[in-house]
Amino acid sequence: MTVSSFSIALVHHPVYDKNRQVVTTAVTNLDIHDIARAARTFGADRYYIVTPVAEQQALVSRIVSHWQHGWGATYNPKRKAALDLVTVAPSLEAARQEMAGRRGREPKLVVTGAAGRPGCLTTAQLAERAAAGGEDYLLLFGTGWGMTEEIFATADLVLEPITGCGDYNHLSVRSAVSIYLDRLFGRR
Amino acid sequence: MTVSSFSIALVHHPVYDKNRQVVTTAVTNLDIHDIARAARTFGADRYYIVTPVAEQQALVSRIVSHWQHGWGATYNPKRKAALDLVTVAPSLEAARQEMAGRRGREPKLVVTGAAGRPGCLTTAQLAERAAAGGEDYLLLFGTGWGMTEEIFATADLVLEPITGCGDYNHLSVRSAVSIYLDRLFGRR
Repeated sequence: MTVSSFSIALVHHPVYDKNRQVVTTAVTNLDIHDIARAARTFGADRYYIVTPVAEQQALVSRIVSHWQHGWGATYNPKRKAALDLVTVAPSLEAARQEMAGRRGREPKLVVTGAAGRPGCLTTAQLAERAAAGGEDYLLLFGTGWGMTEEIFATADLVLEPITGCGDYNHLSVRSAVSIYLDRLFGRR
Repeated sequence: MTVSSFSIALVHHPVYDKNRQVVTTAVTNLDIHDIARAARTFGADRYYIVTPVAEQQALVSRIVSHWQHGWGATYNPKRKAALDLVTVAPSLEAARQEMAGRRGREPKLVVTGAAGRPGCLTTAQLAERAAAGGEDYLLLFGTGWGMTEEIFATADLVLEPITGCGDYNHLSVRSAVSIYLDRLFGRR
C-alpha cells in the first residue's frame, strides 16, 4: 500500500454565477498566493489553477514567474516555495490527467462544499481514509457561485460543507480551502 | 456561569516589518471581507480592525458602509451580515475596552501564532476552556511580520501556531484566522 498524496484545483470554469448561468470567473492574485501558501503548509503535491482562457493562464504564469525567478524570488524565498506548487490547467480533465501522470495512478476527484447532498463524506471520514493510504485525491474548489452539476456528476467523492456555529456559512474560497486542508491533513 | 463569547482583532499596529522595525501596516480590502465572513460563520461577537491612522479608519468605514447601506447591501445581503461585525478601533486597548463595555466583563487577550513560545496553549485546550464557559476572549491576529513583544507582554494567553505537515507554515493571516476559528469554535 502506498502513502496517499493529494493535490488541489481551483476551478474557474465551469462554475455558476449569481443567476446560475455557467460562466468563467477571473483569476485573482490573492487566490494564487493564499491558496498556494495553504497548499504548501499542508503538503499538497500540486495546486492546479483551472481556466480555459489563454490570457488568464498567461497572467497566472507571469505572477508565479515573478516570485520564482524575478525580484520576488530573492525578496521572499518562502513565497517561491509556495508558488512552486502552482500549475496552470486548461480544464479539470487536464489537471486530472497531469496528476495521474505524475503519480502513475488515477486520483479520486473530491468535490468540496456541497450543502445538503446525500451521501456526503465528513472531513473526519476522508481524513481517516487518506491516513490509511492507498489512494490519491484531487480536491476541487469552486469559484463564483459554485461548481456545476456536470462536475458533481464526474466526482468520486463529495465532502460535507464547513459549518460554523449557526446557519451562516459563506466563507471565502481562500478560507474554505484553508479549513478543509487543516481538517484533512493538519497536525494537532 | 455564563456562556463564553469571543471577538477578534486584526492588528495593524504595533507590528514588525521584515527587518523587525515597528510599523503600521495598511488595511486591505480582502482582509476586511474574508475575515468578516469567517468571523460571522464561527460566531464572533465583533471583528475589530485596529489601526491608529485616521485615513485608514475612514477607508474601512467607507468600505463597510458600502455593503451595509449602499448598493452592496441589496446586491449581497450575506456580505452585509458579515460586515456588520466590523468595528474600527484606534488601538488594541480601545478594542479591549469596547469589548469589556459590551459584555460587562474583561476579556482574556489571546495572542495567536506564537512559534516556540513557552507555555503556549494548544487550540484543543482553549476550545475546551471556551466550551466550559465563564470567560470571554479577544483573539489577536497580527499583520506584517507579526505582533510586537509589547503585545505579547500584555496578553493573558498565548496560542500555539498552526502547523501543517512539515516545517513550512507561512499561512496568510486570512487562512490563519479561518483555521483558528474552525479549530476553536467549529462544529464537526
